[in-house]
Amino acid sequence: MSTITPPPRGFASDNYAGVLPEVMDALVEANRGPLVLAHEAAYGGDSMTARLSVLIKRHFGEKAVAFPVFNGTAANVISLLACCPRHSPAVICAENAHIHCDEGGAPEATAGLKLHTLKTERDDGKLTPKVVQSAIFDRDSVHRSQPGCVSISNTTELGTVYTAAEIKALSDVAHANGMLMHLDGARISNAAAALGGQPFRSFTTDAGVDIVSFGGTKIGAMGAEAIIVLNDSLLPALPFLRKTSMQLASKQRFASAQLCALLEPENKKNEEDNSSDDDAVIAGRIPCPTPLCVKYAAHANAMAALLNDGVKKLVPMIRLPEEQVGDIRANAIFPFLPHQVTSRLHANGWRFYVWAHITGQVRFMCSWDTEKEDIEQLLKALKYELEKNKL
Amino acid sequence: MSTITPPPRGFASDNYAGVLPEVMDALVEANRGPLVLAHEAAYGGDSMTARLSVLIKRHFGEKAVAFPVFNGTAANVISLLACCPRHSPAVICAENAHIHCDEGGAPEATAGLKLHTLKTERDDGKLTPKVVQSAIFDRDSVHRSQPGCVSISNTTELGTVYTAAEIKALSDVAHANGMLMHLDGARISNAAAALGGQPFRSFTTDAGVDIVSFGGTKIGAMGAEAIIVLNDSLLPALPFLRKTSMQLASKQRFASAQLCALLEPENKKNEEDNSSDDDAVIAGRIPCPTPLCVKYAAHANAMAALLNDGVKKLVPMIRLPEEQVGDIRANAIFPFLPHQVTSRLHANGWRFYVWAHITGQVRFMCSWDTEKEDIEQLLKALKYELEKNKL
Amino acid sequence: MSTITPPPRGFASDNYAGVLPEVMDALVEANRGPLVLAHEAAYGGDSMTARLSVLIKRHFGEKAVAFPVFNGTAANVISLLACCPRHSPAVICAENAHIHCDEGGAPEATAGLKLHTLKTERDDGKLTPKVVQSAIFDRDSVHRSQPGCVSISNTTELGTVYTAAEIKALSDVAHANGMLMHLDGARISNAAAALGGQPFRSFTTDAGVDIVSFGGTKIGAMGAEAIIVLNDSLLPALPFLRKTSMQLASKQRFASAQLCALLEPENKKNEEDNSSDDDAVIAGRIPCPTPLCVKYAAHANAMAALLNDGVKKLVPMIRLPEEQVGDIRANAIFPFLPHQVTSRLHANGWRFYVWAHITGQVRFMCSWDTEKEDIEQLLKALKYELEKNKL
Amino acid sequence: MSTITPPPRGFASDNYAGVLPEVMDALVEANRGPLVLAHEAAYGGDSMTARLSVLIKRHFGEKAVAFPVFNGTAANVISLLACCPRHSPAVICAENAHIHCDEGGAPEATAGLKLHTLKTERDDGKLTPKVVQSAIFDRDSVHRSQPGCVSISNTTELGTVYTAAEIKALSDVAHANGMLMHLDGARISNAAAALGGQPFRSFTTDAGVDIVSFGGTKIGAMGAEAIIVLNDSLLPALPFLRKTSMQLASKQRFASAQLCALLEPENKKNEEDNSSDDDAVIAGRIPCPTPLCVKYAAHANAMAALLNDGVKKLVPMIRLPEEQVGDIRANAIFPFLPHQVTSRLHANGWRFYVWAHITGQVRFMCSWDTEKEDIEQLLKALKYELEKNKL
Repeated sequence: MSTITPPPRGFASDNYAGVLPEVMDALVEANRGPLVLAHEAAYGGDSMTARLSVLIKRHFGEKAVAFPVFNGTAANVISLLACCPRHSPAVICAENAHIHCDEGGAPEATAGLKLHTLKTERDDGKLTPKVVQSAIFDRDSVHRSQPGCVSISNTTELGTVYTAAEIKALSDVAHANGMLMHLDGARISNAAAALGGQPFRSFTTDAGVDIVSFGGTKIGAMGAEAIIVLNDSLLPALPFLRKTSMQLASKQRFASAQLCALLEPENKKNEEDNSSDDDAVIAGRIPCPTPLCVKYAAHANAMAALLNDGVKKLVPMIRLPEEQVGDIRANAIFPFLPHQVTSRLHANGWRFYVWAHITGQVRFMCSWDTEKEDIEQLLKALKYELEKNKL
Repeated sequence: MSTITPPPRGFASDNYAGVLPEVMDALVEANRGPLVLAHEAAYGGDSMTARLSVLIKRHFGEKAVAFPVFNGTAANVISLLACCPRHSPAVICAENAHIHCDEGGAPEATAGLKLHTLKTERDDGKLTPKVVQSAIFDRDSVHRSQPGCVSISNTTELGTVYTAAEIKALSDVAHANGMLMHLDGARISNAAAALGGQPFRSFTTDAGVDIVSFGGTKIGAMGAEAIIVLNDSLLPALPFLRKTSMQLASKQRFASAQLCALLEPENKKNEEDNSSDDDAVIAGRIPCPTPLCVKYAAHANAMAALLNDGVKKLVPMIRLPEEQVGDIRANAIFPFLPHQVTSRLHANGWRFYVWAHITGQVRFMCSWDTEKEDIEQLLKALKYELEKNKL
Repeated sequence: MSTITPPPRGFASDNYAGVLPEVMDALVEANRGPLVLAHEAAYGGDSMTARLSVLIKRHFGEKAVAFPVFNGTAANVISLLACCPRHSPAVICAENAHIHCDEGGAPEATAGLKLHTLKTERDDGKLTPKVVQSAIFDRDSVHRSQPGCVSISNTTELGTVYTAAEIKALSDVAHANGMLMHLDGARISNAAAALGGQPFRSFTTDAGVDIVSFGGTKIGAMGAEAIIVLNDSLLPALPFLRKTSMQLASKQRFASAQLCALLEPENKKNEEDNSSDDDAVIAGRIPCPTPLCVKYAAHANAMAALLNDGVKKLVPMIRLPEEQVGDIRANAIFPFLPHQVTSRLHANGWRFYVWAHITGQVRFMCSWDTEKEDIEQLLKALKYELEKNKL
Repeated sequence: MSTITPPPRGFASDNYAGVLPEVMDALVEANRGPLVLAHEAAYGGDSMTARLSVLIKRHFGEKAVAFPVFNGTAANVISLLACCPRHSPAVICAENAHIHCDEGGAPEATAGLKLHTLKTERDDGKLTPKVVQSAIFDRDSVHRSQPGCVSISNTTELGTVYTAAEIKALSDVAHANGMLMHLDGARISNAAAALGGQPFRSFTTDAGVDIVSFGGTKIGAMGAEAIIVLNDSLLPALPFLRKTSMQLASKQRFASAQLCALLEPENKKNEEDNSSDDDAVIAGRIPCPTPLCVKYAAHANAMAALLNDGVKKLVPMIRLPEEQVGDIRANAIFPFLPHQVTSRLHANGWRFYVWAHITGQVRFMCSWDTEKEDIEQLLKALKYELEKNKL
């Protein structure tokens, strides 16, 4: 039997996927006025950004204000910069946080921040109040870089999901110690979907989060993220920090258009104007309908669950991390593969990352466009190679 | 007689204009594989970025390497950072340079650079060797922040254009003094067009420039600029500086697709593959055909010239700056208007910037989409208001 | 006739002079406990720093708090950093301010600050409300780096002196525009002496200044300056900013000892304890006696006045700047010398700086240790060379 | 029986100690010229700095160049900045390194550096090639902040000492991977003494170290450290980095005088000129005699050894860390004390730091001025309190 051919969609990362059709349509549309191609004011003075500002209030509460930026690195660094005054330039985070492992040192190089990285209690990438508390000491000592905020990711780098209650407990510790709370939501839609379609505000605004990095790119935008300010004391600084951090787009309407497409209700018709109920949603009189991004995230999560179910059947040829069993999980799984199996799959064109070279742990990540057939094909290929390896 | 209604396209800035149809087509196309929506490697490992790298060599010579970034602020700051080692963190520039007046202090705040700003000999925004030379002294004194590079803009902030010879003379001074040469090309296509369609390399690579901020957004991209490294000693650092400066796109293919669309020959058919003559163009055996961006820039420049001709006829009701008469100019003009005229035009919906509040100087900027009728309409409105004002 | 031999004390800078005998005595004494060489807590928890804190309140008012640092660059940069939140990182200053011309770019490189440098109305190095006002515009524009403070030097780089009223007028403009006021007092003792021995607080605390760089080194310390915080909203950040700026001394008692020696009454006997009247002085019930540093500064100023008188007699062989005639001046004069005269004096070992190569302006600076004979000798040498030059 | 009274010299830190008499004499002398109080050029152009430059070559080899700075934080941060180009801004160090735990975040805040902190193999604060190697991966990935150097401390924070061979092994790993080697020598004299009086160059220059933070303050200077550049490729940048880092002293002669006093032979007579053999020592024809700082360091180390011997006799009432038994150690010991004992000693005025609150580990540090009676007194007090605690 020959090897299994990989589908055109791999499992390397959700940022290998393309742009959602609804987002692409929104871009084309944003390039037109009602009749002709019209000019719009640069730097955010446009109609799409105005619409975005309403949508953000629908999803995050009436005090929420969004500042579109270009990528997740910037959303995180600017958020942290906003939270940390010059004399408290440290950030408490998990030792496997994206801001520590994957931003190339941007928080330190560009913003002068120091990260107090903490080992988590379990191998699930999640901070707990106890662990955060352990980093809070010598608060009046100049010899220790003072933390200005706690930063968590939802979903985490390990594909796990914090509940609203878990986040609230961390925010409480942060606030009780004079710090602010940042949530890196590069995959916030996947988190919302994993939490059963809970509204964003339930595990951000209502859970004491002060500022959010809202991720659009990984869930199908072309390239659009937003900093969402929930604590209005941070508002005056944000526009200036975004500019000096080189993240202000002149044609911002196209970033806003992408974010709007993600945040409009999933079943919105193009011709339909659903702004009539804006006030009611913002006031909480009617619930905020599920946005497009969460619909697609739910699909990606479901594909990962399907893959997980299939992978479990390959045990003991394959090993699963303990956390993978009980936790709420989103769109990625992290099994341990024999090195030869990984090599052979890579050689055959299968795309996925090796997460830890020593242990052989790998990451399979599903995207908004992952199809059921892709999963079946991958499971077939895994089974084939694992069995071949056993011989 | 009633006031003249402004067209949907204003004269505020070329970044108020939308996206070129060819660029929008390229984006839609980049979202598809040959048959299905396919994944592409993130962070530049994609096919569009590969094509961009060839196109950049066609236009800037075989040693040129492009690094797409999100906006002009970043293209400039990262370029300057690459040119300035830690112990020579100063930049020589004109006192009205964009990096000094309009980046919100990003070069200082984010990169720790100091700008040695110089008054130009004429009021045309252009540095000259003599002026640059005046800032080169105390080269071994630690009390003076040592310049690591000279930075010019082409076109300048005042709409004027440096010739290749003028740039060469500045590069020579820079290099003779151990400095590098940076060209801010936010409107480089307008400069090329104003220079009679000269290839980009004639006034960059061949004029001794070490690094270029290549502007795509103002000439019709959705949001894409590129740092073009011409001096290969700068190459090792660039990828890392781009990352720590928070300017690496995960779905970089879409930025590259925009830049490719701008740089392909203007008459390229979508179905046509013109990669066959890449080698010949790069080797200089056949000339590089005019790219799409220069075609559109020529149009914008022509519209500005038309406007200038019309405005001249309004003298002496309107005053023109001396430089506007003789210089090579691009897509903007800077006449002096009576304050009441400006106010009334603004009140009636005409969009343009006041350049200097005290003198009443204003800026009318043409874009790739400015139409002849827009100019005629503006001239009519100007004439109407000026005459009304005279009474 | 042979040339005139220069004395062992030159006119290059007051930082070429040595340490005051009273300061050296204080250092020796600080190294001893009452009976034996005893340990004292590091980082400011020592008895000399405790005494300094009282002395600072005597001189600057009961809210004043001092933070010793190592040099003037640091006193300035940390003060500016304290005044400028991250989103207002610009500083308004004169174009010949020390922070702009002589700190090697430290404000930009280390602190990310941008300097808005202004041309002064007269050639005296002094900002005026009108000039400061000209830099206050576009306060809500992210494209302009927003100023967080105004910084002046007293004495200025040109040896002139601001009156308390002039400073008050600038502070009012700063505060009315949401900015703070910084005074670079590298030669604050010379300013106080030039103002007729006015107490420091009259032209700082009482003139609306928020933070002061207090200079000790130029008036006879070995190396000790202090940041004096007058606006208590800046207090919480200062200790941390000093530490991250690498300016916290472990054996701080020796810096404090120097500053104490400078600030004790000029006629203090070593054995005498004058702490009995601390409360009365701080409460303003009895005047603060002239401190040692102002006594010595008055001497240096007097020597410069003597030199100025002598130089005036050499007109027209020598030219004086207009400002030198009418202004309140401190310990430096800035005449214009023929180039050959400067060269010959330098060749003969006379030490003074050329201030402006093109015009031939030079600076003669007097120190706490300049003697009357040194001035007479210099005047003789000047006369000799000027006459020789005329022939 | 009453409690034991602590001596005037505590065990908190060697920076609680005062200034060596020889250093104080040197300062007084540096303030005089041969006959009168004379001026000397500022910023290093003085005779003491000239002498320092010879002494540094005697101790570190003919290519060594010293740059005096004010404190250890600065010596470290500037050294690291010199080693790390903008695109490799990370530093590999032990997780208990001073630069990570005690600089208040200065490396990050001021210099934009990221620290890759590593757990050591044993609990001795010492990196090993294997551990360093574990941090060297993904060398071409922009997502990982690339290390530009390895930084170790000798002595370490835990009072242990690297041998020359151990340092050489680390330098080899650093250099083989394109990194430089930094040695934080805040207590380098104690290390030299612990290594049997080995010349400094044996475990720095000859062991492949590129740059050294030479500590003077803790071994009896008033406040003087030096960056010693051993790799001459770092020389051009250093003066500028020192200035922008705000560490250039105007009256540098006094810092140099302190360092000279520490580095002259221990038995130097004041009147004696020992510059005659400079060339021979630098050329290695005659050995470099033991400098004053190492003589005093040997005394401090001996006092710590005496204390250690006494403490061992208190086992098992007191617990010692394993490392304390076999390792080469310098002037500090780290036993574990019952909390009540620590509290009572502190209450009675004994000065020493709690190193780890949870385990009860404390640090007793000896200084150049610790006397045998101080040790005996401390041992008595310890014994008294431990026995009282046992009851």
